[in-house]
Amino acid sequence: MSIQQQVTDVATRARSAARVLALATRAEKDAALTAIADALTTHGALILAANAADVQRAEADGTGAGIVDRLTLDSSRIGAMTDGLRALVALPDPVGEVVRGDTLANGLELRQLRVPFGVVGMIYEARPNVTVDAAGICLKSGNAVLLRGSSSARSSNEALVDVIRGAVEVFGLPADVVQLVPGDSHESVKALMRARGLVDVLVPRGGAGLIRSVVEESTVPVIETGVGNCHVYVDRAADLEMAVDIIVNSKTQRTSVCNAAESVLVHADVADELLPRLVDALQAAGVTIHGDAAFAAYDGVVAATDDDWATEYLDLDIAAAVVPDLGAAIEHITRWSTGHTEAIVTADLAAARRFAAEVDAAAVLVNASTRFTDGGEFGFGAEIGISTQKLHARGPMGLTEMTSTKYVVTGDGHVR
Amino acid sequence: MSIQQQVTDVATRARSAARVLALATRAEKDAALTAIADALTTHGALILAANAADVQRAEADGTGAGIVDRLTLDSSRIGAMTDGLRALVALPDPVGEVVRGDTLANGLELRQLRVPFGVVGMIYEARPNVTVDAAGICLKSGNAVLLRGSSSARSSNEALVDVIRGAVEVFGLPADVVQLVPGDSHESVKALMRARGLVDVLVPRGGAGLIRSVVEESTVPVIETGVGNCHVYVDRAADLEMAVDIIVNSKTQRTSVCNAAESVLVHADVADELLPRLVDALQAAGVTIHGDAAFAAYDGVVAATDDDWATEYLDLDIAAAVVPDLGAAIEHITRWSTGHTEAIVTADLAAARRFAAEVDAAAVLVNASTRFTDGGEFGFGAEIGISTQKLHARGPMGLTEMTSTKYVVTGDGHVR
Repeated sequence: MSIQQQVTDVATRARSAARVLALATRAEKDAALTAIADALTTHGALILAANAADVQRAEADGTGAGIVDRLTLDSSRIGAMTDGLRALVALPDPVGEVVRGDTLANGLELRQLRVPFGVVGMIYEARPNVTVDAAGICLKSGNAVLLRGSSSARSSNEALVDVIRGAVEVFGLPADVVQLVPGDSHESVKALMRARGLVDVLVPRGGAGLIRSVVEESTVPVIETGVGNCHVYVDRAADLEMAVDIIVNSKTQRTSVCNAAESVLVHADVADELLPRLVDALQAAGVTIHGDAAFAAYDGVVAATDDDWATEYLDLDIAAAVVPDLGAAIEHITRWSTGHTEAIVTADLAAARRFAAEVDAAAVLVNASTRFTDGGEFGFGAEIGISTQKLHARGPMGLTEMTSTKYVVTGDGHVR
Repeated sequence: MSIQQQVTDVATRARSAARVLALATRAEKDAALTAIADALTTHGALILAANAADVQRAEADGTGAGIVDRLTLDSSRIGAMTDGLRALVALPDPVGEVVRGDTLANGLELRQLRVPFGVVGMIYEARPNVTVDAAGICLKSGNAVLLRGSSSARSSNEALVDVIRGAVEVFGLPADVVQLVPGDSHESVKALMRARGLVDVLVPRGGAGLIRSVVEESTVPVIETGVGNCHVYVDRAADLEMAVDIIVNSKTQRTSVCNAAESVLVHADVADELLPRLVDALQAAGVTIHGDAAFAAYDGVVAATDDDWATEYLDLDIAAAVVPDLGAAIEHITRWSTGHTEAIVTADLAAARRFAAEVDAAAVLVNASTRFTDGGEFGFGAEIGISTQKLHARGPMGLTEMTSTKYVVTGDGHVR
């Protein structure tokens, strides 16, 4: 059977399973999530053995230490997965929420209700925890999920999905609400992207290349996630100590994530006072600064090129420039931003308001680290990714963002 | 200059104009809408002359009377357009609405605000009123719009857009918030569909073929609209007089629209009683019935094929079948529905609840005509189309559906 046909088959099974799951009550879904968490704990040894095979293969292939680390599971990482599932149990069920309701002038009762999408496709890279997170979030929001992880995590993902399916089935829901997409090649990703009508939405999570290719090739609607070329702009009216703290935190608290800062812009009026302190603090934290002429006057600062303004380093590097004013900062951000998170440090209310209004991004932060753009930090309790597109969801996506709506209109023989 | 380059140029200008429009207040936008309505009235003769040229060309080309009628403007149709614009003035501005807000445990203030998409592309067929409706809805929701109407309405659209741009500009907003997409060929549609990054969302309105091609080819996110293979299911517990009224109204009140009924399903237990009355009533209204064996026993009923279950006739034709029970009705609808509007006629609460829960459509109507799925009927005051997809908007799309959101998060030096 061709990969195309195999993917169509799993998608068709997901569709049937989704119809059953869509009708499950919150109590049923929560019990299934608890059963999955218990099963992952019970079968920890089996999962770690499968993961060890992936890690061994990755090391034999000469994979970088960072990627091997992200791939590696241990009992504490399995514990984090099961904690995540139990946290989902505590969250309200988005399905059935009445979003809008009215009795129309003619007496028709109009209700707009949240309903699951149906079938969600996830395409993602190395971390096996995404397998469990995605399965949990999709299950709680009533969606069947098709998981296409990376081939490097294949054994881990197979073991995790086996355990999850077993728990779901014992519990009485169809195992096919959680399935791996067959095939390791790009062909299977392609088949998933072309399964319009069977798959309702695709969520790619990973590097810019992966996301771009899904956006370009998919006929299934896509929620674009994650590429973050995030800026911190220090306004003339900023508290400079606060500015240094926010920049260092935004850049270094965790570097490999999409909400880390990648560029800093400084108002010319405070450059003389701020730059020496900022350069010191960043360099002390191990950050390489790729600066414009004003920054490059400092020791150890590398001269920036246009490429630097566009780069999501995801590492201890930051681009830095002095701008003549707030308007120029907004222009720079408009040109180079990926629309993820942009921050301003200022004590000036008018500047904060203008920045928040004119900067076009999923999140605008005022006097706070870019690292706060996160479903957990926002209080959503769970996050399937951070959308950088404007359609459907923008910013951190929790359970609510994994639903669609349906109108139910009730009359007593109404005709037009 | 190539068409590709010309489309990129108008899209780039739209992007700049959108940045200005996004900051306009409701008062400014409402004043601009009023100015447009006044200008369309003032320049009515010019618009009718341009339209006459389109109509003449269409007639010379042997275009069908129905399409020529849809293309034709007169002063009453211009009046309907200006009424629509004035109705928009009365509607609240969706931009700036706080959708969600919270003060987080760490004191960060989180607000999720409605913001415009930016640039909206409309691809549509003959009716010139869509030009004015789309321009008005996009302007009120703060979006620049790129209009790609059909070549048959080119002169009308050019005249309308000239008048609109003039009014917008005199008022002080950039004229480029409303632009026609240059070029008559498919090449210009293609360029628009590939303008990802410049155009935020595309809304195709028209026949199934147009919509399918946009969905398949576009890299710009699309909101799929309008194909409606709508069913009316008559349950065992239905009031049969009500059922006949609802079916006749759903089918015949207006046939060329996406919320007209195209199929009727009848529970076997009421078939003997209902079918003679229903066949009579539909035939008296001029409807040709394409029926299964039970229906085909009646004079004048044509035997249905599988094609009939799938067909959106948009005419005085309806497919009709008897089903053994509610479950079979839901299965039939699941197989053939386009996910637009599905109706049940029943007095049985459990049947109504099951139908509403299990039928996967933008709108489920209980004891009401399918013709009610409409932005105007739902009380939205304006409608840019009816979405049949699940991402972002589902069902009639008003001003709210033409917006995205942005998080604004305010702290006083918060770091993680």
